[in-house]
Amino acid sequence: MLGNFTYHNPTKLYFGEDALGYLKDELKNYGSNVLLVYGGGSIKKSGLYDEITAILGDAGKNVAEVAGVMPNPTVEKLNEGVKTARENKTDFILAVGGGSVCDYSKAVSVSVNCGDDPWEKYYIRFEEPTCDIIPVGCVLTMAGTGSEMNGGAVITNHATKQKIGHVFGDDVMPKFSILNPKYTMTLPKYQMTAGIYDIMNHICEQYFSGEDDNTSDYISEGLMRGLITASRKAVIDPTDYEARSNIMWTATWALNTLVAKGKSTDWMVHMLGQAVGAYTDATHGMTLAAVSLPYYRYIMPYGLKKFARFAAEVWGISREGKTDEQLAEAGLAAMENWMKELGLVMKISELGVTGDMLEGIADATLILDGGYKIFDRNDVMTVLKASM
Amino acid sequence: MLGNFTYHNPTKLYFGEDALGYLKDELKNYGSNVLLVYGGGSIKKSGLYDEITAILGDAGKNVAEVAGVMPNPTVEKLNEGVKTARENKTDFILAVGGGSVCDYSKAVSVSVNCGDDPWEKYYIRFEEPTCDIIPVGCVLTMAGTGSEMNGGAVITNHATKQKIGHVFGDDVMPKFSILNPKYTMTLPKYQMTAGIYDIMNHICEQYFSGEDDNTSDYISEGLMRGLITASRKAVIDPTDYEARSNIMWTATWALNTLVAKGKSTDWMVHMLGQAVGAYTDATHGMTLAAVSLPYYRYIMPYGLKKFARFAAEVWGISREGKTDEQLAEAGLAAMENWMKELGLVMKISELGVTGDMLEGIADATLILDGGYKIFDRNDVMTVLKASM
Repeated sequence: MLGNFTYHNPTKLYFGEDALGYLKDELKNYGSNVLLVYGGGSIKKSGLYDEITAILGDAGKNVAEVAGVMPNPTVEKLNEGVKTARENKTDFILAVGGGSVCDYSKAVSVSVNCGDDPWEKYYIRFEEPTCDIIPVGCVLTMAGTGSEMNGGAVITNHATKQKIGHVFGDDVMPKFSILNPKYTMTLPKYQMTAGIYDIMNHICEQYFSGEDDNTSDYISEGLMRGLITASRKAVIDPTDYEARSNIMWTATWALNTLVAKGKSTDWMVHMLGQAVGAYTDATHGMTLAAVSLPYYRYIMPYGLKKFARFAAEVWGISREGKTDEQLAEAGLAAMENWMKELGLVMKISELGVTGDMLEGIADATLILDGGYKIFDRNDVMTVLKASM
Repeated sequence: MLGNFTYHNPTKLYFGEDALGYLKDELKNYGSNVLLVYGGGSIKKSGLYDEITAILGDAGKNVAEVAGVMPNPTVEKLNEGVKTARENKTDFILAVGGGSVCDYSKAVSVSVNCGDDPWEKYYIRFEEPTCDIIPVGCVLTMAGTGSEMNGGAVITNHATKQKIGHVFGDDVMPKFSILNPKYTMTLPKYQMTAGIYDIMNHICEQYFSGEDDNTSDYISEGLMRGLITASRKAVIDPTDYEARSNIMWTATWALNTLVAKGKSTDWMVHMLGQAVGAYTDATHGMTLAAVSLPYYRYIMPYGLKKFARFAAEVWGISREGKTDEQLAEAGLAAMENWMKELGLVMKISELGVTGDMLEGIADATLILDGGYKIFDRNDVMTVLKASM
């Protein structure tokens, strides 16, 4: 059942090769002290940094910077950004980079004007913001996380080996995001395919859960089918602009709350993957890929009809002459083949996980209750071992 | 190709049996002079009118009313609403009814503070608002038009026999909409099925156009498949709340600009249907149903691959051993069967069109250029005759 819910996504999305041209007018809506947030050197190499600083300069903005936001942004980096924002009286945050930069900027935005320690307040106690939130805009250079149109912000604490996501409300979503598929085309293939798998898994985390056969399931199937087609083209030819556009647009719709309506949602692949990430600092999408099939094969009997439907509706496998079990297995085999076509990492040992880490990773795996089978720690260990 | 576009849908949607409970808090965001807009007596019979006037009273609002907004709202009614709003210094418009009431309220909202004649300004010259727009909220009692989350407003001028839609920007979209599927369940079956067909056709108007195989096509296919499944349940049992919920949610997403991204979009079925509506005042969804198959069969050769895909992906017809032409024909036959299951009107003569009206209806049919075949007046007459 769809049940009772609210849907509100006020983010304004500018999509396409001309999207950056809208930044100038958007900036008029925000204050003069801009915090420019980015990752490593790639936006300097690509020239995007120069384009953006020129636009900010023309707009008469005072610009402070937080550079070096790492792929799994840390609590230390968060505190650094909060300090810089306070020193510069930041009234607008412009994130230029991938999901990690956009996520990070949201975490900063809810922390600057609150007195509390952000990690404790948002990532341990899971409180909501009780202070003024600084508006955020995103110029996206990587497709995958959906951060550009949601309230999510994942932060990593290496000291405690925790990587935790907080999903804030619609007042923390970016005010606008600029999505130019061309920006994603400078990515190495490893990141491109990791992002593609992140998109697929976002949809699966919502699709493979409780209440079935509602509008969200049908939209999810459409998004997955489109992604599979586009990703195959992108792997053959990463310069295929049309394919990269469709991947970028699908990423946004995979995780902006729409396809969660009426679904309890699972998220255990993400919990397992994040725990692996906390221990290895591996690329997010690869941590998901490495645990997915063991997880889905383990829970398949508990959601058999949905896995059978997945096989037929997403992978086009004929139902004829097959039991639900055969169909379900064929569907997961088809997904496995696609993952191998993409060159994804299929074992956590290849991400640096060693046997002695497993207990710690299991401890770090948050257990949620929305999937077809509610896990206990033994289930977690079983899946982790099967993922080695 | 997705191309270049902007997506912005700030409407806040409250969905479900408890949705009306959010009205009280929403009203705090708006001024004290509320214009309550509704149609005939159904909301009084259902008790919804009393619930809403009580909420408005408790909120301390001054309430003026525009009652009797007809299913094809007229320019005279629009002018009456504008006058009432001016007399009462309306600062918020609450539409309670179906798409016509919600559309109408949007048309009023952009006309009150402008000096120009609204019909001339918005429906003949197609200008955009140049004055303050009054905020609108919708409590939806009928599913179909998508008016609750878009900028559309269709007005009919009986004197000139024109029924014209203006799609306004995101500043005219309702600020919030309340979607309780229970409200749609008091509708007679005729209106329920007309609304269902309106939803299907909205998706088709976007899907069957120019640039193919992008994300929008896949989302559209998902929406159509979900709608077909839910509609079959609703026709057997209109009290099936789950089915009615999915229909209502699909209606919103069918026409809120999402699935138009990267599509030139057709809209000729709507142009033909609206012209029939201007002459007969018939129910919108039935005017579309009555012209659809003649239109789609006529243009099929010009978009053959898409009609073949439609058959396979939406109607589940096996491609094996069929030419594209056979597949395409089978798909339209499947849609025709479904339309008959729903009990839709399949001939414009059954809506009151007589042979002597056809020339006038053809004159009233706006010709657009986004479909697979750009029509001339001869094509229009051919389709109208085939629709008799």
